Amino acid sequence: MAAGQTTTAKRAASRHDSTKPHITDSPITRANWYKHVNWLNVALIVGMPVYGLIAAIWTPLVWKTAVFSVLYYFATGLGITAGYHRLWAHTSYSAGLTLRIFFAAVGGGAVEGSIRWWARDHRAHHRYTDTDKDPYSVRKGLLYSHIGWMIMKQNPKRIGRTDISDLNNDKVVQWQHRNYLKVVVFMGLIFPCLVTGLGWGDWAGGFVYAGILRIFFVQQATFCVNSVAHWLGDQPFDDRNSPRDHAITAYITLGEGYHNFHHEFPSDYRNAIEWHQYDPTKWFIWVCKQLGLAYDLKQFRQNEIEKGRLQQQQKKLDQARSKLDWGIPIEQLPVLEWDDYQDQARNGRALIAVAGIVHDVTDFIKHHPGGKTMITSGIGKDATAIFNGGVYDHSNAAHNLLSTMRVGVIRGGCEVEIWKRAQRENKDIRFVTD
Amino acid sequence: MAAGQTTTAKRAASRHDSTKPHITDSPITRANWYKHVNWLNVALIVGMPVYGLIAAIWTPLVWKTAVFSVLYYFATGLGITAGYHRLWAHTSYSAGLTLRIFFAAVGGGAVEGSIRWWARDHRAHHRYTDTDKDPYSVRKGLLYSHIGWMIMKQNPKRIGRTDISDLNNDKVVQWQHRNYLKVVVFMGLIFPCLVTGLGWGDWAGGFVYAGILRIFFVQQATFCVNSVAHWLGDQPFDDRNSPRDHAITAYITLGEGYHNFHHEFPSDYRNAIEWHQYDPTKWFIWVCKQLGLAYDLKQFRQNEIEKGRLQQQQKKLDQARSKLDWGIPIEQLPVLEWDDYQDQARNGRALIAVAGIVHDVTDFIKHHPGGKTMITSGIGKDATAIFNGGVYDHSNAAHNLLSTMRVGVIRGGCEVEIWKRAQRENKDIRFVTD
Ligand code: HEM
Ligand code: HEM
Ligand SMILES: [Fe+2]
Ligand SMILES: [Fe+2]
Ligand SMILES: [Fe+2]
Ligand SMILES: [Fe+2]
Repeated sequence: MAAGQTTTAKRAASRHDSTKPHITDSPITRANWYKHVNWLNVALIVGMPVYGLIAAIWTPLVWKTAVFSVLYYFATGLGITAGYHRLWAHTSYSAGLTLRIFFAAVGGGAVEGSIRWWARDHRAHHRYTDTDKDPYSVRKGLLYSHIGWMIMKQNPKRIGRTDISDLNNDKVVQWQHRNYLKVVVFMGLIFPCLVTGLGWGDWAGGFVYAGILRIFFVQQATFCVNSVAHWLGDQPFDDRNSPRDHAITAYITLGEGYHNFHHEFPSDYRNAIEWHQYDPTKWFIWVCKQLGLAYDLKQFRQNEIEKGRLQQQQKKLDQARSKLDWGIPIEQLPVLEWDDYQDQARNGRALIAVAGIVHDVTDFIKHHPGGKTMITSGIGKDATAIFNGGVYDHSNAAHNLLSTMRVGVIRGGCEVEIWKRAQRENKDIRFVTD
Repeated sequence: MAAGQTTTAKRAASRHDSTKPHITDSPITRANWYKHVNWLNVALIVGMPVYGLIAAIWTPLVWKTAVFSVLYYFATGLGITAGYHRLWAHTSYSAGLTLRIFFAAVGGGAVEGSIRWWARDHRAHHRYTDTDKDPYSVRKGLLYSHIGWMIMKQNPKRIGRTDISDLNNDKVVQWQHRNYLKVVVFMGLIFPCLVTGLGWGDWAGGFVYAGILRIFFVQQATFCVNSVAHWLGDQPFDDRNSPRDHAITAYITLGEGYHNFHHEFPSDYRNAIEWHQYDPTKWFIWVCKQLGLAYDLKQFRQNEIEKGRLQQQQKKLDQARSKLDWGIPIEQLPVLEWDDYQDQARNGRALIAVAGIVHDVTDFIKHHPGGKTMITSGIGKDATAIFNGGVYDHSNAAHNLLSTMRVGVIRGGCEVEIWKRAQRENKDIRFVTD
């Protein structure tokens, strides 16, 4: 916001007078609530558009002005997304002087504060996401992250500190910050009036539509990155914090809607990584590169991106896994001798050994999809091979079901192991006959 | 098919004369191709509908007949899906005599062979899915699995053997098998004619629409279970074989479209497990249960179902994981002494130790999103804490990136470990000063 300037001014003031408590230190009451409100911002974000809407009643919309308003909406929007955000806040690519001047101008016309102020807050938002040091933390409510943080006064000391030395060295950023008020009035209102007025004599339309109402739409669209993008959608890369991916947010925000990706890979000049996803900001930067206006477009290696996606999927899977019943763990099962197993099976317990584990199938025999005879034929035997394809190659589901019937482990593993050992030890051993 | 009977008859014949080679033993040539064709089935699956279509030109469609045709389509379709398939082939629930007689009748009206013949083939299809013993293996082509297996003669010896002793004990199944020709002619053609003829005098419409064309649609719909359901959709439970889940297949096949689930849990009376998925066959069985006509509806435990789904997801994830580059495995890294690490870092190599692993960040310093100063401050130190929140809690993406920069392991782990050991061993050790 233009009001960013006032915040900065206030901050300077509060530095001088840091003994005096800030208004945000006292709770909101009936008596003092109006002191908590940032009236300048209310005027800029709420008052102006209301005025514009009323003025629109008496201002006919000329179609040339309508077309220009939409174009200028895109230009000033890109000033924020491609300029303020991806270039200056994240240095996800480099831009020549021409492009930087363009962004400083049209970005100013979006009326969202100077590059320096905007980028500093935004870096704090990334560094301290969702904490109290995040200037527009969604944890304080969706409306707060959308406009509440501008409409209510903030204690400047609360916002996390970040390094903006690179911005302080950028001449364009410096100049824009020093002359911000001029930039915002000229690019926000005068320039659109000049275009529509000198172009086709529609001075009033330029002011109301390409000026005030266009500002309103650009502001609301970009504010959605702080609210909707932290509230609606999936979290394919990390679910510890609030950022989310959603196509709808992308449509509203010139492509900034793949916000889970963006918070995970902020130095990537893309927000959408698939070609079919809507990210006009990315397309614009790419075109600038082809024209020689931008260079060093940074991209995270696809391999690292896929790793992140995979780890998040694994996390989800592990959470789901821990909620299921996986049967008695093998280490907790009683150990049986092979002979004991056979004895018990012969004396009426329907036990079946598969892969060294003994299973009690008594209750399952009559439900066995392969029939009673089949399953009964495995009782008292080493049914490892029979179960795994010797007679029928049971499904994964059958293996899972089997594991719920575990009752013991056979010392030394399966029958073959016992038999091998007996051979080695040259002992006699009873064999199953079938 | 009604032709199932002929196949059975042929099989009986071939048993008597098993020395004579079967036609399928000789390759298809120009001279013998017509001997390979099962002309009876061609007449029933292709000839009849063509005749029906032509006859329809002269047969006006009365709306009552249209409604009845659709209703009878559903009744005969359910005879196959709820009766032949889920009740008899899979015994996924039990049905009283009334319901079994109903299914035997309307299932016969679908003209797809006797219960006994159909269920035997279907059990072989499940037991030997996708192999040569599968009567309608999709591995032989989509068209083959749809109708090719009926239109071309099959060597009965090829089809896998299954146990149908339970069906041989079912009086209704026995009776239907013995009187199949009567059942199919009566339920397929005569009964619909009687309804439309005695009902509203439309004998011809009953024959053409409720008879012939309705048979055609029921046949094609149920054939899709063998073709489309093995070809279109996802494999959430097991991807080793061809069965797939797809809503479209479900719409065509009265709910048999969740075929990956069905092949994994064939004894479950449901095919769709979510309430919002289309499975009218399941709904019908459930209603029959409420009416006391069906009982013992079998359902796999949700826990086992989720286990299967999870294991398949894990499998997919592991496959994806193995395709990515995870950096040099820790066990393959050279081992460094803590002092060597510090020496090298001091002599110009930009090394940073995090969690006992040494990383070479030389090429990354100028790209570090947190700035040069920050990352340089970690060189030559144990930066475990700094990297993990001491200064900034790096994202998962940063951890992944870091792992690609590995160059060595520090003997004894991190600095603290070295320090602890030195204390224990009462030795002198150089400390980092900052
Ligand atoms: C050890 C002797 C066993 C033999 C010879 C045997 C044989 C068979 C056969 C032939 C089938 C195929 C049925 C068909 O599709 O027509 C089958 C299915 C099945 N059997 Fe067994 N079985 C044995 C033990 C078990 C045990 C101990 C379990 C316990 C979990 C089990 C669970 C199943 C299940 C769930 C099916 C359904 C199809 C599948 O999910 O793979 N079987 N069995
Ligand atoms: C050891 C000393 C280090 C310090 C003190 C440090 C500090 C920081 C800080 C403060 C940020 C936040 C930048 C912002 O959002 O404004 C940051 C970001 C980042 N750092 Fe470092 N860093 C260090 C080492 C490294 C190393 C060795 C890597 C190598 C992978 C790395 C990778 C990153 C990445 C990828 C980011 C972007 C944000 C993220 O993905 O978390 N840093 N670092
Ligand atoms: Fe964000
Ligand atoms: Fe950002
Ligand atoms: Fe199938
Ligand atoms: Fe089936």
